Amino acid sequence: MAFKSDIEIARDAKKKPIQEIGAKLGIPTEHLLPYGHDKAKVGQEFIRSLEGKADGKLILVTAINPTPAGEGKTTTTVGLGDGLNRIGKKAVICIREASLGPNFGMKGGAAGGGMAQVVPMEEMNLHFTGDFHAITAAHNLLSAMIDNHIYWGNELEIDQRRIAWRRVMDMNDRALRDAVVSLGGVSNGFPRQTGFDITVASEVMAILCLSRDLEDLQKRLGDIIVAYTREKKPVYCRDIKADGAMTVLLKDAMQPNLVQTLENNPAFVHGGPFANIAHGCNSVIATRTALKLGEYVVTEAGFGADLGAEKFFDIKCRKAGLKPSAAVIVATVRAMKMNGGVAKADLGAENVAAVQKGCPNLGRHIANVKGFGVPVVVAINHFYSDTDAEVEAVKAYVAEQGAEAILCKHWAKGSEGIEDLAKKVVELAEGGKSNFAPLYPDEMGLFAKIETIARRIYHAGDVIADKSVRDQLKAWEAAGYGNLPVCMAKTQYSFSTDPNLRGAPEGHTIPVREVRLSAGAGFVVAICGEIMTMPGLPRVPAAETIRLNEAGQVEGLF
Amino acid sequence: MAFKSDIEIARDAKKKPIQEIGAKLGIPTEHLLPYGHDKAKVGQEFIRSLEGKADGKLILVTAINPTPAGEGKTTTTVGLGDGLNRIGKKAVICIREASLGPNFGMKGGAAGGGMAQVVPMEEMNLHFTGDFHAITAAHNLLSAMIDNHIYWGNELEIDQRRIAWRRVMDMNDRALRDAVVSLGGVSNGFPRQTGFDITVASEVMAILCLSRDLEDLQKRLGDIIVAYTREKKPVYCRDIKADGAMTVLLKDAMQPNLVQTLENNPAFVHGGPFANIAHGCNSVIATRTALKLGEYVVTEAGFGADLGAEKFFDIKCRKAGLKPSAAVIVATVRAMKMNGGVAKADLGAENVAAVQKGCPNLGRHIANVKGFGVPVVVAINHFYSDTDAEVEAVKAYVAEQGAEAILCKHWAKGSEGIEDLAKKVVELAEGGKSNFAPLYPDEMGLFAKIETIARRIYHAGDVIADKSVRDQLKAWEAAGYGNLPVCMAKTQYSFSTDPNLRGAPEGHTIPVREVRLSAGAGFVVAICGEIMTMPGLPRVPAAETIRLNEAGQVEGLF
Repeated sequence: MAFKSDIEIARDAKKKPIQEIGAKLGIPTEHLLPYGHDKAKVGQEFIRSLEGKADGKLILVTAINPTPAGEGKTTTTVGLGDGLNRIGKKAVICIREASLGPNFGMKGGAAGGGMAQVVPMEEMNLHFTGDFHAITAAHNLLSAMIDNHIYWGNELEIDQRRIAWRRVMDMNDRALRDAVVSLGGVSNGFPRQTGFDITVASEVMAILCLSRDLEDLQKRLGDIIVAYTREKKPVYCRDIKADGAMTVLLKDAMQPNLVQTLENNPAFVHGGPFANIAHGCNSVIATRTALKLGEYVVTEAGFGADLGAEKFFDIKCRKAGLKPSAAVIVATVRAMKMNGGVAKADLGAENVAAVQKGCPNLGRHIANVKGFGVPVVVAINHFYSDTDAEVEAVKAYVAEQGAEAILCKHWAKGSEGIEDLAKKVVELAEGGKSNFAPLYPDEMGLFAKIETIARRIYHAGDVIADKSVRDQLKAWEAAGYGNLPVCMAKTQYSFSTDPNLRGAPEGHTIPVREVRLSAGAGFVVAICGEIMTMPGLPRVPAAETIRLNEAGQVEGLF
Repeated sequence: MAFKSDIEIARDAKKKPIQEIGAKLGIPTEHLLPYGHDKAKVGQEFIRSLEGKADGKLILVTAINPTPAGEGKTTTTVGLGDGLNRIGKKAVICIREASLGPNFGMKGGAAGGGMAQVVPMEEMNLHFTGDFHAITAAHNLLSAMIDNHIYWGNELEIDQRRIAWRRVMDMNDRALRDAVVSLGGVSNGFPRQTGFDITVASEVMAILCLSRDLEDLQKRLGDIIVAYTREKKPVYCRDIKADGAMTVLLKDAMQPNLVQTLENNPAFVHGGPFANIAHGCNSVIATRTALKLGEYVVTEAGFGADLGAEKFFDIKCRKAGLKPSAAVIVATVRAMKMNGGVAKADLGAENVAAVQKGCPNLGRHIANVKGFGVPVVVAINHFYSDTDAEVEAVKAYVAEQGAEAILCKHWAKGSEGIEDLAKKVVELAEGGKSNFAPLYPDEMGLFAKIETIARRIYHAGDVIADKSVRDQLKAWEAAGYGNLPVCMAKTQYSFSTDPNLRGAPEGHTIPVREVRLSAGAGFVVAICGEIMTMPGLPRVPAAETIRLNEAGQVEGLF
């Protein structure tokens, strides 16, 4: 059987003019700022006019811990959106934008797959509507203004050893991780060591994704701590007077981007913060706008449910006042087998025992999500190699956990293949059973919040941290930051901090190596293990084969 | 008398939908890729369909050496385009895009002024259609791939001391001028000294502006010399295999941007290379497209005619096969006074003698442009403080040089104020007197080309250069680059290399400090004096006051 590739399917898409997609949601043409014929930003004024309207129902798509087998979380998010539209619900999809840099490293793409894709795929993996470029510019304007402030006399008495604000680039460039800048003498400033992160790791990205509007955005940008004085007093972005100009640079980036699925259903693709040192969800403004326009909003969170769903609930929903009605946990037979100890090369052979052995990873995620008071359904994203017996094993296991697992064939069939899941989601959401509450209260201490997540979500035994880390958390509590949620940065591959520990480990130790304050975004990052904020390129980067073909189409990007 | 500011005038503009502006030029809506309601890119396919059509007439707007008084070259370019349309000629304007970074340093803006502006002004001074971001990304992808190549074994045997390719950022950031990268140990690469230029100084910018189409673009990108081996053999971008992916990143940036004047006439705003280390003109593709669509195309070149017009003729016209029909040299009474020795603070008082004393600067430019075989007219860009006697002094001087000077009031009155100039331009262009030829033949030696420009355009005595510089030029000649034109990088404020030497100096010495090969763009840069390729921010950067006002409008950018 010969399959079309994702890009071939995307190129064959019968796209409608974006104005028609907007009209489905009641967005008048004059409030849609077009970017080409198939992308548009929704205007501020229109978004403001929605204030007071009732919200639709919010559905989270999350997943088991990712494995090299691939789970298809975005594909399922897109498929479910199409499926809900198919059964007569006005549904809107909300997903993240793709980062440009990594596409030139490994073949990638973040627009779903098969018959469940968002288009235009090529542009979504290139510059799209320029949001990430705007974030890069805003971030680096602040960086330049900090060094410029010091150059001209350092009136704020910034301790040049304690500058917390680095620079960013949307590129996989390991050479920029660690650099000494301002070399070359008097006219270039005071040499100091610093470096670059990839743009998606910028606090500006997290801020953009958590801000309600431009006013909130500017306030949060002003709140960024860029450095400390010798007396360890924080110096804010506001003190550098960069917040106004940064807001100007971000004014268009702040508006949600509307595109469409292969089935011409509306999708907002907006924002894309890291899912480790940040919260990993699309923008609050996109989700809130979609909730005003649709009966259903299907959105996803980064990585597995231990990181992605927890942050979605404890950071995004808490801060934006969102109340999810149901959650879908995506699993695959192949991933269950890998969790059960099968190597990637051996995934083709039926192995019911391995599936059963791997299921507890899924079971843990089901229990965790239920723990937030949100009704759960499992989507088994179907692969051709899955056998009936394997699928039944997953279904049986999930039933034992008091939930239902539904086989979904949206990758091959689009909305037709995911109708059952869509119906179940409607049943859960309209059953009124959701009783969402975050995991911990705002007023809990910062270290206790870390412990709560580690014990209740990761089933860890101990949380260990140096005195310096604990003292830092106490200092932030004293400074008034104790009410912030915690953003856990750990490997996405395991409930533990050991990426090779699959399944559902218990009693492991979580070491908190470092803590960082994202005062503008409004969370404290707890770094457990090595977290890379500037990726490198592989030996043979995808860029070497990316090119335009004779028809002017992009080859090699996907 | 109270004047409206440029931004107030721009905000009051009665813009037409960009599709209507395109329709004036016969561009069908489906070939206009909209960016918002008032900007659009012209599609590749449509541009290809114009092949074989007759060209309109090309008019260059250039100027005397710039002074702090301001000459208004862009304002006159826009005004003349409106003026030609007013007298019944289908005219299109072609100007450069503004660089983002410098707008956060000094108040700026590159969209004309008064009643002769191109809109939307705010966006043209911010991200516009993202072209410069795309250039930044393409440039830095190559940078990352070079270091990545070395990291994974350096198969091409690049001498790490001889990497010619730096990184770029569209920001005034002096801290990045000189940096050591790849610090931090094995996983980050081999430490080496390098730095960042501002994006407009990237060779990718010059290449984009000189390429005929995407194929030509990719070929030129491949030709970039990124480094040398220990044996001093060049390593090309093509060897790094970055040319295909860079072309993909630039595919939209390569398409000209259509906007409109305050009088709803079409303007292409596309590309913006540095006017010192590059040639300082808008893109060839924009100019060529405009020539197919309009009876008249009015374009400008960077800095004064000694740099801008010379490069326009000797690099852009030579390489793109363009034949300008007439040239306008912009001068102001104020600038003549400054050339005559008056300080900026004293410009308000009538001083006919100083005007007369300053005129030889203008006279030199008139003679130089005539030397290219192009008919010349002088536009006196009127200021309210100009007296009749001062204006008459300029007119009389210009008449003595065998040309005509016409007083233009487009800043205050729009096209109505520049009708006389428009009529004169038509007379010159339709008189068939243009007999354009570049200054020197391709086959002249590289150093001889530098000497020719220095003697014939700058009226210099000697050209001096170290043996190493002369040897380098000979080595490039031996390597087959001898037929390239030369791109002079010197101060724009004087015919000499001393920025304080106004007027029309003679017999001065031009020191060639350094030469660089832009093998992709296709020119050899001769650097005479200090040329800054990464600006810094001033003590109080404009960014500190740039913000959104309560109405959501940008304040402080202009």
